[in-house]
Amino acid sequence: MRDLSSDTALLSLNTATVKMQWDLKQIIDGCERHQIGAISPWRDQVAACGLDEAARRIKGAGLRVTGLCRGGMFPAADAKGLQANIDDNRKAIDEAVVLGAECLVLVVGGMPAGSRDIAGARNQVFDGMSAILEHARSNNMPLAIEPLHPMYAADRACVNTMKQALDICDRLGEGTGVAADVYHLWWDPDLEQQIIRAGKNKQLLAYHVCDWLVPTNDMLTDRGMMGEGIVELKKIRGWMEAAGYDGCCEVEIFSENNWWKKDPEIVLQTCIERHQSVV
Amino acid sequence: MRDLSSDTALLSLNTATVKMQWDLKQIIDGCERHQIGAISPWRDQVAACGLDEAARRIKGAGLRVTGLCRGGMFPAADAKGLQANIDDNRKAIDEAVVLGAECLVLVVGGMPAGSRDIAGARNQVFDGMSAILEHARSNNMPLAIEPLHPMYAADRACVNTMKQALDICDRLGEGTGVAADVYHLWWDPDLEQQIIRAGKNKQLLAYHVCDWLVPTNDMLTDRGMMGEGIVELKKIRGWMEAAGYDGCCEVEIFSENNWWKKDPEIVLQTCIERHQSVV
Repeated sequence: MRDLSSDTALLSLNTATVKMQWDLKQIIDGCERHQIGAISPWRDQVAACGLDEAARRIKGAGLRVTGLCRGGMFPAADAKGLQANIDDNRKAIDEAVVLGAECLVLVVGGMPAGSRDIAGARNQVFDGMSAILEHARSNNMPLAIEPLHPMYAADRACVNTMKQALDICDRLGEGTGVAADVYHLWWDPDLEQQIIRAGKNKQLLAYHVCDWLVPTNDMLTDRGMMGEGIVELKKIRGWMEAAGYDGCCEVEIFSENNWWKKDPEIVLQTCIERHQSVV
Repeated sequence: MRDLSSDTALLSLNTATVKMQWDLKQIIDGCERHQIGAISPWRDQVAACGLDEAARRIKGAGLRVTGLCRGGMFPAADAKGLQANIDDNRKAIDEAVVLGAECLVLVVGGMPAGSRDIAGARNQVFDGMSAILEHARSNNMPLAIEPLHPMYAADRACVNTMKQALDICDRLGEGTGVAADVYHLWWDPDLEQQIIRAGKNKQLLAYHVCDWLVPTNDMLTDRGMMGEGIVELKKIRGWMEAAGYDGCCEVEIFSENNWWKKDPEIVLQTCIERHQSVV
């Protein structure tokens, strides 16, 4: 395993981690000030800053962009809705290109409101990805499916395990892979095997870290800082690196009652300290 | 599929569903009054009633017992703790025998406090089940692993998919199987295949129904009544029955802010109405 004990270059800050305290310009400045090597911005923050301005500032700060969050959200109640979602994903690809992102992260979407048809939603995800694939390939922008925890299967992402994501990637072929987030995947007894499988096919496009708190008091916004919870972070990073992953560790923490309320300087310092000690 | 449209014999009431309103005696009386065919009591309620008294009343009411909730909770911080849990599971088997239960439901347990070793917890589950298996077999009491939703992997049950449960059952052999609860399993893209697999090996020991609400406001106590949420109940029951399952549909609803606050007569009437229409 790589020695991260004095590293900051392989640390990526997902901008959601301090989104309540800072806008994108402030986050970029913060990363530069703390010598954090990479960033992964959200589209709404990029839009608020202005796409070209965001790209210029990120480049100016010398930051890698480990992903753009996020495309996906394909399933819709009708064909027109699906087409609108496909069109929006093409735009997301274009934005990722401007930002120099290493991949476009896809949170694929859940079932449309009122639907109970999860198989249908999964088919729409496949159809949606198929529809944007040539645009992604021709722009050299890898599409990274982020399997989300099964507790989000109904309303956020109907792709919920690494195996399921890789089965989709295998059907779609070149230009697709996964963003592996420990928060969503840590529990899966099949995780190591699926990481090995993904590594063989060069499908490990991103690695996201945070921690799972016990108890978890909110399904969306109660993630822990690395080391606060029960995830075996070093074991999972070991699996990733043994499978050939050599990218960054991206910190993505949604924390309504704790990290979103802290001084963002402290948050960044803590991210660095934990990256160097427990990730 | 079986026609349940005028059935109450194949409806089982898990006593948790009205535990806030009624004690076990009242629940037994309620089931008899509503001609509900079966019951699945929790051990604490049985203990409060008295084991022999509970058995006598359940038999007197003509109720099947689709399971005793619950054994399991094996993992412990040390060997002494594991042994205590094993001993408690032997007692649970004895109680299930007295009650005439069709199986002992196992919620297998999560990681001991402070642990991050989910693989170790899973090994303890296997060891614990191995230790009670002969006692279960000699008493003709099937052990039904209930895979719990992955959101409970850390603190309640480290067995989280049907596949994982069946892999354990296959290693343990005769006298083991699964309690399939739609709340925990509905999202799994592999569910139909695993139900088919379980059916071939006579491992489908119980079937639990409720519904998954969108949004879900509490990870433990915000389950829906059948029909209120997004689970394709008839599809999953179809898979179960196509795989050979011919037992009851057991209603188990934890609902702090809704069904636990309603008149239990209304709750039972609603269970029957939904059992006959949407399950």
